[in-house]
Amino acid sequence: MAHTFSHEQRLDRLAEVAVQIGLCPVPGQEVVMNAPIEALPLVRLITEKAYKAGASLVTTLFHDEASRLLRFQCARNESFDRVAEWLYGGMAKALRNGSAWLLITGDDPLLLAGQDPDKVARFNRTTWQAFMAALRPIFSFEINWTILSYATPAWAQAVFPNDAENVAVGKLWDAIFAASRVDTADPIAAWRAHKDALAAHAKFLNEKRFAAVRFRGPGTDLRVGLADDHQWLGVWLAKNGVSFTPNIPTEELATAPHKDRVEGVVRSTKPLCYQGTLIERISMRFAGGRIVEANAEKGADLLREILETDEGARHLGEVALVPESSPIAKSELLFYNTLYDENAASHVAIGQAYSPCIANGTALSPAELDAKGANHSLLHIDWMIGSPNVDVDGISADGTTTPLMRAGEWV
Amino acid sequence: MAHTFSHEQRLDRLAEVAVQIGLCPVPGQEVVMNAPIEALPLVRLITEKAYKAGASLVTTLFHDEASRLLRFQCARNESFDRVAEWLYGGMAKALRNGSAWLLITGDDPLLLAGQDPDKVARFNRTTWQAFMAALRPIFSFEINWTILSYATPAWAQAVFPNDAENVAVGKLWDAIFAASRVDTADPIAAWRAHKDALAAHAKFLNEKRFAAVRFRGPGTDLRVGLADDHQWLGVWLAKNGVSFTPNIPTEELATAPHKDRVEGVVRSTKPLCYQGTLIERISMRFAGGRIVEANAEKGADLLREILETDEGARHLGEVALVPESSPIAKSELLFYNTLYDENAASHVAIGQAYSPCIANGTALSPAELDAKGANHSLLHIDWMIGSPNVDVDGISADGTTTPLMRAGEWV
Repeated sequence: MAHTFSHEQRLDRLAEVAVQIGLCPVPGQEVVMNAPIEALPLVRLITEKAYKAGASLVTTLFHDEASRLLRFQCARNESFDRVAEWLYGGMAKALRNGSAWLLITGDDPLLLAGQDPDKVARFNRTTWQAFMAALRPIFSFEINWTILSYATPAWAQAVFPNDAENVAVGKLWDAIFAASRVDTADPIAAWRAHKDALAAHAKFLNEKRFAAVRFRGPGTDLRVGLADDHQWLGVWLAKNGVSFTPNIPTEELATAPHKDRVEGVVRSTKPLCYQGTLIERISMRFAGGRIVEANAEKGADLLREILETDEGARHLGEVALVPESSPIAKSELLFYNTLYDENAASHVAIGQAYSPCIANGTALSPAELDAKGANHSLLHIDWMIGSPNVDVDGISADGTTTPLMRAGEWV
Repeated sequence: MAHTFSHEQRLDRLAEVAVQIGLCPVPGQEVVMNAPIEALPLVRLITEKAYKAGASLVTTLFHDEASRLLRFQCARNESFDRVAEWLYGGMAKALRNGSAWLLITGDDPLLLAGQDPDKVARFNRTTWQAFMAALRPIFSFEINWTILSYATPAWAQAVFPNDAENVAVGKLWDAIFAASRVDTADPIAAWRAHKDALAAHAKFLNEKRFAAVRFRGPGTDLRVGLADDHQWLGVWLAKNGVSFTPNIPTEELATAPHKDRVEGVVRSTKPLCYQGTLIERISMRFAGGRIVEANAEKGADLLREILETDEGARHLGEVALVPESSPIAKSELLFYNTLYDENAASHVAIGQAYSPCIANGTALSPAELDAKGANHSLLHIDWMIGSPNVDVDGISADGTTTPLMRAGEWV
């Protein structure tokens, strides 16, 4: 596949999109970045552009998956109950003080596949709970933040297992650059047009004031009641007044379910990769908003572990609609990476609801948000339930049904 | 130069020395590592060996000099008064809670050479003061810690400016591996023998109970009074009971000067590389222990800035004797790296005194240490005053003079 732009130019454009469209740091704002060590070239470009945009200080916390694996291979059993509280606590402090936050993902979806499940479970419990706790200002949209991905060799090999490493990495970059609109003549202009289209679509859904959306397909008949005063969002505004884009790429229109008004059964349509472990073919039953049955053909133990996090982990915090015509869905690839897979299919998330999905939500107290049905939890985990075989209807308060998606496409 | 061992084997042996001789983590102890991102291969080996030695958790904070330079090139002026307090505060918390600490150095000694001196000064003041403050448990020897180096390309090119990068890196690794005794048949045994020799030499000096040491050479006639109950140390014991080796390599015998009993003039014999800036041909005059005149032919502004840190920055906190026959000195290289240059020449340090250099010092309060003449400061910066042209005498309380070093060599 020939390109107008070199890899270096495309990476530079991706960094520009990450800063100008994604993060949008304001002059004088600090930036905290989390990145896999392989993403160093992108980290440097983002660092440069964030400083040029006026960031006062850019600090990157690199993580090394090989070192993480060495822990599983060499550390004593007690290690897996330990977590660097001092580091997550420091990060939490930075975010509470108003730092913008940027995450680069690119994890090996199979990193921990062969490791002791008990150690993996304890590692997840301690490490990811500490990480999620540090991210509270993100979940409550206090500050501007964004997530994008870097094509690491391990991730690329999981997506393209039959290709040589360099071929796989090249293909994954092609998919990332295309989905992130950096191959267009003017990526920033392309993104502005895309955000306008998402905003117009959200406006349409908001004017309908649906009481619920219903998903129907193989193994799925789920009615997701929506929170009172819910808002469908395609563009996002943080409490600090900054308009930003939480995901690069993004194709979703998302809102907050009512935590107590979800009924029926649902089956996942893509695997969920959670911190180096795959959870596949999830099936769940909801009653009164609560997950009363949960299973998975692979990774069921980890799924049950996740649901034990807190009561909010057993309720939905997000429902999002993504058409099959989205550039990522059209690639027909399975990315084993939530950022990509969730922007290729309609999805729900267990856990924390995002306050901007309630009208005036960032100004409301936790109790006020709770009264409107917005869910509260330490975690927020998206998983995919849309496919060309799943239909979606909007259901009004009077019971009127409006077809929204047929065969995975907007009606 | 042919070697018995491959680069990978030598790096593995260096990691083994760093963990078994340098850091000596105890089972269940956390480890915090600071490293340049280029040192990743060594970081992974040390991580593996630290876990095998029983470390509960190994966390590495990587720093990227290219990102640091981008800050100088792109950030707004106000950036240089900012520091990631949240990160240094987190690190300080880990060390206060008993983590072992390992630092890998390999900085480009010329990184900030072309940058605005005002920004460099403000950067040093904020960043390095925050770093030094986090290192208080190190300076007071609460915990076991060690420093070693990694041959980064930028550092290697500074040491071997006339060689191609790969040749320079190879030569620097040869020097590092030789000085770190990893080319011997059994590096751990070689280190134990070396530490025994240093301990025996320290015992000799301690039995002499000198009141002062005197350095004489071109531009130097300095009498360094020693602290009451001073101890010369070649091997070190932390307050947590762990015997460790703070520097890999190490050739010095060090003790604490009396902060108020240093008199005369002194000239540096090697450049001091301080965080990307060189300070060359330092000359100082001491009266009553205090630096009353200070100059440098290059980097004088930064030197004056350093001396303004606090009152303790104007007094000595360490004096150390290193023979010209040390393997590092014999290499006749100028490393622009304190770890290497200070182990190739006798030196002094301005700033904080190390409490183990006072008998029973780690058990004494700051006030008790002060009463014995041990200096106190936020910083500790070594600089070299020894050379083949500098003689050293021990001076007893009764005025008797004992020649210690002639032409840079032990008498």
